[in-house]
Amino acid sequence: MTTERLPSWRPGATRDAILGYLDGIGDVPVEDRVAYLDNDGTMWCERPHYVQYDFFVDVLRRLAPDDPTLAQRPELAAVLDNDAAKIGELGLAKVAGALAALCDGQSPTEFAAVVDDFTERYRHPTLGVPLASLVYRPMLELVEELRAHEFTVGIVTGGGTEFVRRISPGLYGVPPERVVGTMIGYELQRDDDGRPVLRRTMASMGTPNEGAAKVAHIQSQTGRAPIVAAGNSSGDKEMLEWAQASPHGGLAILVDHDDADREFAYQSKAATFQDDEPVTAVAQRLGWTTVSMARDWEQVFPPAS
Amino acid sequence: MTTERLPSWRPGATRDAILGYLDGIGDVPVEDRVAYLDNDGTMWCERPHYVQYDFFVDVLRRLAPDDPTLAQRPELAAVLDNDAAKIGELGLAKVAGALAALCDGQSPTEFAAVVDDFTERYRHPTLGVPLASLVYRPMLELVEELRAHEFTVGIVTGGGTEFVRRISPGLYGVPPERVVGTMIGYELQRDDDGRPVLRRTMASMGTPNEGAAKVAHIQSQTGRAPIVAAGNSSGDKEMLEWAQASPHGGLAILVDHDDADREFAYQSKAATFQDDEPVTAVAQRLGWTTVSMARDWEQVFPPAS
Repeated sequence: MTTERLPSWRPGATRDAILGYLDGIGDVPVEDRVAYLDNDGTMWCERPHYVQYDFFVDVLRRLAPDDPTLAQRPELAAVLDNDAAKIGELGLAKVAGALAALCDGQSPTEFAAVVDDFTERYRHPTLGVPLASLVYRPMLELVEELRAHEFTVGIVTGGGTEFVRRISPGLYGVPPERVVGTMIGYELQRDDDGRPVLRRTMASMGTPNEGAAKVAHIQSQTGRAPIVAAGNSSGDKEMLEWAQASPHGGLAILVDHDDADREFAYQSKAATFQDDEPVTAVAQRLGWTTVSMARDWEQVFPPAS
Repeated sequence: MTTERLPSWRPGATRDAILGYLDGIGDVPVEDRVAYLDNDGTMWCERPHYVQYDFFVDVLRRLAPDDPTLAQRPELAAVLDNDAAKIGELGLAKVAGALAALCDGQSPTEFAAVVDDFTERYRHPTLGVPLASLVYRPMLELVEELRAHEFTVGIVTGGGTEFVRRISPGLYGVPPERVVGTMIGYELQRDDDGRPVLRRTMASMGTPNEGAAKVAHIQSQTGRAPIVAAGNSSGDKEMLEWAQASPHGGLAILVDHDDADREFAYQSKAATFQDDEPVTAVAQRLGWTTVSMARDWEQVFPPAS
């Protein structure tokens, strides 16, 4: 029986480079076969908004009618007014922080229930599809191919870890402990019966998981160094360089969003990268494997069900 | 074919309580079957010193001849002089910090090599056995039994995460990302060729992983809440209470070191617990399952090989 490998990928140099690398992996000990894949824009669509941004906006819209004070805070007012200029002026990081703080005081179980409620209702604002249909089919096939080569696969996100942990087992088969993102803080409190309960708090949030922090966090949170990494943004640069520099010889994959017809066409830039150089130029200069969505992917999304 | 379960455990109420709990686990979804086991004093012997303390002392003794300035620092001088009174006066936390800082600047790969070199040479100071022979045989059987019931098993340590991550896959079959301890900081630097390399730094060390911090760290680092937890010290109290309070109904196990003949007899107390109440009394008061090494374990250590 022959099963076609990477069936949604078009034949060509990119597919050959990836399969060629994986087929040469035999000399690398299994415990060192580690892959970390960025989530937003690499595993699933991040336009027009990050899904996690839509999630927190949803949380806000459901809370706002019962709490008029929320609309008095500039960051939240800008979101409620859908005022892109104002959000840009305040800075997305500050706005995202104010949104995430809406979940302060929730236990992990409560937060998980809020995430589940959102993901069940979610439809993409322009594509009209549910969450699972935003996952790039070729990337899921890459995950399968990595596993067929005995890789341990993890997911990286610049957003909050706990949100992605809630969706990663179902969408990617990646367990919570292999999701590395920006860490929320927790405080141990006691309920009325004196039993311990964890409560979310933005007061002890971790460093935003972008740029060099992605590398430090993958190592410190999971004790693993990737030899395969995939990203799509200049905020993934250090992680991709790190994987590439592995003593085993690494593979750095950049997903290039160059397909306005089937997805979105843009260059993704992170605040951790100060230069004007487009990330695709960085990829070429450093010898990464660039995946052109337009050229290399026969299908982008899963078939409509 | 009948395989005896927990063969190193003596028949009795403790063994029955553990097996009875596990046999009733059928209604708990597999993804919620999570066990976290403390390492020092729960999975392996922690007396007369923590193994990780012996490790850092070994690092110091190998560096000291080439660097006379080390002996001029009070924390390190006390260790080199084996001056227990002085170490007590300075505080073990401060001494441990000074010792751990000796590895500042090492990459994860370099640190792993230093750990491997130590663990190969290590012999327990009074028992004369190698590291693998310090692991409690009944606890390894408990890990097996947990896995037979489809539990995901993690290890918790008050010490440095990266040391335990290096030994946990081999000794316990627990991968690095499921070891939760005190996190070392990392800084991303560049080598002479401009390639990224992570370097250990105590400058951004995490909160010591004891008491309430153990609970917050298990959640934030791994996104998992245990329904079974095992410990031996008052620094495990919050973690044991947290597991016990699980909505699924949890199992909290306290290992009581009451066997001076075969191991060591002591009550283990952590700085996070301020009261004078012995941890065994806490266990009785809160309804934990107390494992008496003297009464419940037929064998303590693996057979001599």
